[in-house]
Amino acid sequence: MNDNSENKHREVSDMKIKEIGEKGIIEIFQTRFQGFSFDMSNVLLGIQTATGIHEDCAVIDLRNDLFLVITTDLIGARTHKPPGMNDYQFGKKAITVNVSDLAAMGARPTCLVMSVGFPEEFDSRIVEEIAEGMADACRSYQVPVVGGDVNSTDDIILAGTAIGLVPADQLLTRHSARTGDLVAVTGTLGDPALYLKILLEKHSISNENRQALAKRLFEPEARIKVGKDLAEAKILTSCADITDGLGWELHKIAVASKIGILVEEEKIPTSDAFKQICKLQRIQQLPLILYVGEDFELLMTIPPEHLEDAKKICSTRGIPLTVIGSVKGEPGEVLIKKIDGNIEPVKKKGYDQFVESKENKKQG
Amino acid sequence: MNDNSENKHREVSDMKIKEIGEKGIIEIFQTRFQGFSFDMSNVLLGIQTATGIHEDCAVIDLRNDLFLVITTDLIGARTHKPPGMNDYQFGKKAITVNVSDLAAMGARPTCLVMSVGFPEEFDSRIVEEIAEGMADACRSYQVPVVGGDVNSTDDIILAGTAIGLVPADQLLTRHSARTGDLVAVTGTLGDPALYLKILLEKHSISNENRQALAKRLFEPEARIKVGKDLAEAKILTSCADITDGLGWELHKIAVASKIGILVEEEKIPTSDAFKQICKLQRIQQLPLILYVGEDFELLMTIPPEHLEDAKKICSTRGIPLTVIGSVKGEPGEVLIKKIDGNIEPVKKKGYDQFVESKENKKQG
Repeated sequence: MNDNSENKHREVSDMKIKEIGEKGIIEIFQTRFQGFSFDMSNVLLGIQTATGIHEDCAVIDLRNDLFLVITTDLIGARTHKPPGMNDYQFGKKAITVNVSDLAAMGARPTCLVMSVGFPEEFDSRIVEEIAEGMADACRSYQVPVVGGDVNSTDDIILAGTAIGLVPADQLLTRHSARTGDLVAVTGTLGDPALYLKILLEKHSISNENRQALAKRLFEPEARIKVGKDLAEAKILTSCADITDGLGWELHKIAVASKIGILVEEEKIPTSDAFKQICKLQRIQQLPLILYVGEDFELLMTIPPEHLEDAKKICSTRGIPLTVIGSVKGEPGEVLIKKIDGNIEPVKKKGYDQFVESKENKKQG
Repeated sequence: MNDNSENKHREVSDMKIKEIGEKGIIEIFQTRFQGFSFDMSNVLLGIQTATGIHEDCAVIDLRNDLFLVITTDLIGARTHKPPGMNDYQFGKKAITVNVSDLAAMGARPTCLVMSVGFPEEFDSRIVEEIAEGMADACRSYQVPVVGGDVNSTDDIILAGTAIGLVPADQLLTRHSARTGDLVAVTGTLGDPALYLKILLEKHSISNENRQALAKRLFEPEARIKVGKDLAEAKILTSCADITDGLGWELHKIAVASKIGILVEEEKIPTSDAFKQICKLQRIQQLPLILYVGEDFELLMTIPPEHLEDAKKICSTRGIPLTVIGSVKGEPGEVLIKKIDGNIEPVKKKGYDQFVESKENKKQG
């Protein structure tokens, strides 16, 4: 989403959808879905709750210390299927984007439902490949698709809803980070964004690097197991998945938790392929990491005394955990210490499908 | 869905999506989503269970005698917004189609999530009207939309998921009808189908009739309260909502419950406007009632000894309940006694968005 506050001076109704953007659309729904007079006391986090608006999942209190965690994500071929991604991978992605949101809340996925749409002139083989990709993702996350709906649409549309459960005391959110916490991420960042840039700008790279990067962009994995393990250990103060860029996610935690964050460029983990290609092709690393996303890694805040436990949990799953900064500074402020020593603000921007700009070029 | 079994002789992969139709697509997903090796013992009804495939909702056992009921329905403007329906009504419908499936299972709706897509060149006023329609439907059913996702799509896409809860002993399904039960429906049938025909074929009707019928097609109401009341009374043996035509729903119950059904044409309740217009314009009533749908009424089977209780429950809510036939005959066979006394089979056909035919002309 982009901060398009200058638009606020015009009457929203007179504007095109691309002018109000994702943020404007969300604001319209948020306003309308507030102030219902019926009992909503079981809605712990939702679009209408002060803390819920910062989360990717809604949370319903089922009583007995059990929370229902629900998320929905729609992907369309035109906007979410980068050039080179096949139908099998697109089906897999439809499951991953939904399950990843559960992972970030510490929830154990219970099931998914999928509403799908296909253009009628397309080959039915496409349906088979998408279904196969979805099924393989189900196997990988050990969560079944239990229902769905089938429609005729102009573009391939895969709208999923993932439902999970989490014990009340294990729920992870964006709004409980505290000053003094460490900021850490799983895995490495930037590979999918870099490969997208390479595809769009037709950079030439080695076959080996191409394979490594393509896998990250085309078959991302949700960190569902390690998310659940970390939630069970009750050692994190906040958590999010990095699908819209590290910068965007840092800002969301800073706003939700009313804290400041300082990260250090040199500490941000990247793959060897990423480092090599960026150096060779003179590509700036930081914009890819901060403002593009598609990483599906977990970003979290950890009280320093729990860092070793968190690292152990991640390493048991074979996943590196890297401290990239700490919670400090003015509430809502996100800063980055560059490699040259300068400290700069991280822009509050991410990907908005509706807003076209050079910096906003992404499909995914 | 249409029965296009003649297609089975060709290799599915060589066919266009419109050739395999809705049924073919569902079969592909059903096959792929079966045989997972992980624990799925909590999935009571789902696309992969023998009885679940007949239902519009999946059912998850949460233990403690509580079932989670989940349904998803996607509507697109091109296929589901009939000429004359406004954006507000389209938003309302997106909630109703989902909530209606919960009503048929006797579940109390807990919340909804909505993944929506809009073409970027459209006026943002459309978003406001759709959101307002959704919000009014939420008020009417007393269920909140708690989350969602926003996307850029080629057509307006509203993909909803409704989640409800039902005590284990109150769940209504299609698979427990028994020989000797009565078959009954709430309200009147055929109005939405008739109005659709009038719109498409440009019949002229009185303003009064137009208003009455338009309301039924453009602002249908899910029978959520009476569905819950009937479920709580534990007097029904099966239940379904009539969204794809009475004929289609009768067949689904007959197949799921392995029973036969005989209904009588003269007993099927229709509105005064319906009777009047069909007579004046010489429109055949039965095809509209059996093979089009969009009624959003409940179809149910009731042991004769519980009929009076069921009628009382419905009348408390101001809703007529009419017995239209009984459970008898060969398993899977659905017959109708016409007004002329002849008994004919009810065709196993309903609406398939992917299959073009004269009899299949519907938008909704």
